[in-house]
Amino acid sequence: MKLIRWGAADQEKIGVIINDTWYDTSAFGGDYNEQFFNDNGLERLEEFVKANEGSLIALPEGTRLGSPVARPSKIVCIGLNYADHARETNAAIPPEPVIFMKASSSLAGPFDDIVIPKNSVKTDWEVELAIVIGKKASYVEEAEALDYVAGYVLHNDVSEREFQLERNGTWDKGKGCDTFAPLGPFMATKSEIADVNNLRLWLTVNGQKMQDGNTSNFIFNVPFVVSYVSQFMTLLPGDVISTGTPAGVGLGFNPPVYLKEGDVVELGIDGLGTSKQLVKNYVKN
Amino acid sequence: MKLIRWGAADQEKIGVIINDTWYDTSAFGGDYNEQFFNDNGLERLEEFVKANEGSLIALPEGTRLGSPVARPSKIVCIGLNYADHARETNAAIPPEPVIFMKASSSLAGPFDDIVIPKNSVKTDWEVELAIVIGKKASYVEEAEALDYVAGYVLHNDVSEREFQLERNGTWDKGKGCDTFAPLGPFMATKSEIADVNNLRLWLTVNGQKMQDGNTSNFIFNVPFVVSYVSQFMTLLPGDVISTGTPAGVGLGFNPPVYLKEGDVVELGIDGLGTSKQLVKNYVKN
Repeated sequence: MKLIRWGAADQEKIGVIINDTWYDTSAFGGDYNEQFFNDNGLERLEEFVKANEGSLIALPEGTRLGSPVARPSKIVCIGLNYADHARETNAAIPPEPVIFMKASSSLAGPFDDIVIPKNSVKTDWEVELAIVIGKKASYVEEAEALDYVAGYVLHNDVSEREFQLERNGTWDKGKGCDTFAPLGPFMATKSEIADVNNLRLWLTVNGQKMQDGNTSNFIFNVPFVVSYVSQFMTLLPGDVISTGTPAGVGLGFNPPVYLKEGDVVELGIDGLGTSKQLVKNYVKN
Repeated sequence: MKLIRWGAADQEKIGVIINDTWYDTSAFGGDYNEQFFNDNGLERLEEFVKANEGSLIALPEGTRLGSPVARPSKIVCIGLNYADHARETNAAIPPEPVIFMKASSSLAGPFDDIVIPKNSVKTDWEVELAIVIGKKASYVEEAEALDYVAGYVLHNDVSEREFQLERNGTWDKGKGCDTFAPLGPFMATKSEIADVNNLRLWLTVNGQKMQDGNTSNFIFNVPFVVSYVSQFMTLLPGDVISTGTPAGVGLGFNPPVYLKEGDVVELGIDGLGTSKQLVKNYVKN
């Protein structure tokens, strides 16, 4: 299944994609959140969709998509998980995963604008494969880790490099700004993806290819990452783990290249669709 | 007002403390969460309590307390915010606040056990004053920052020093383990605390005084911290900011001293009550 959330920001309803058409499933009730994943929601939704397939309402063109999962309890990120990206940022290849966190208030829809924060001069892009957790995971073995995964989603791990690296904190300071986590277009359930550790992922800025990698180059693959994070904190249903970005971020250029108002970022992953964000400067509401 | 949440873990009901007696206010409805703070819940609760003061049911002795606020969208922490603590950990005094995040799954009640994680050898304590956000805060000026504060709460920012400092990640890796954020006993609304930047805070382990500080020694005080964090991420109603710990943590001893099974940690802050945690080793459920 491919899950979407649609409608006005913070008022999203749920839906699914069937044969490239977006359908409203709000009659199923609830949201794609912790309770949904915890209560066997994926299985129940599949039955609901089968039972109602003829009568589901297609969504009109131009419908806004939100993040395909509701705001999770946490967004955990893996840093430097591709050797080429570690090299371009002059970082050592980590002997074990680097973990940092993104404020969940940074969550955005896949076609929403990226807002450059006030006082930012180094807003950068990062195409990433993100994992959605399906059930409570604590001290999970690598061999069982995929049992705890609900699905996968495309993520732009937008990052302010000055806030992240030069402002005297942990990386979190440059990772959780509003709009810095465009997620989607859809969450693909696990069965939709034949080999999550062999997917091409790419990103362009104004049509120019910046990133072009493959998850086969992960230093730490999906089962390892889920198992690893679960050693340090309990992962809850609906939680998101983003798995790191390949080479080609703005920080890696010489001199570095950062986003400016009017830029258009497009990104995609095999089997997980594409997303597109227009970059805007912060304007006080 | 002094807000409490009580009952079995993950099923807490709401209550208040009046003249040292704990009362059930679950008839008010809902929880002390984002929606409560956002919908002017503190004012409405005060009216409810006034209107029902004679008929509120007192809670029996031995009632378990949970965190006095529901699981927030984020727990943001300020590192090294007391000069004496920066010195004891051989860290430089930061020119601007260090920010890191604690997984909200680490939230615990004020008298719950601290569970030493599997493979942990350096579990440490940190008494801290935590701020509860009352309304959505983005790019808030320091002069207006207190308008965005709902109240204050005692927090033990339990920390695994090896995970935090020696395991190749940001600090988050050693801060968000389950049970690592005992919060409470109660949230005091802002009006209960005459001067939040002048409160004594202390912590003992097995009765021995380890920390004894005062928030007057903050490097960055409460209004500054709220304003500062809001430059990097939007703070949502019910979010928690923990403001850092004074000297006297286990890491600061020579040689360092860490928690072991059977230890008893007690802590308190003027006007915010005291809490007490028994330390246990992790046991697989």
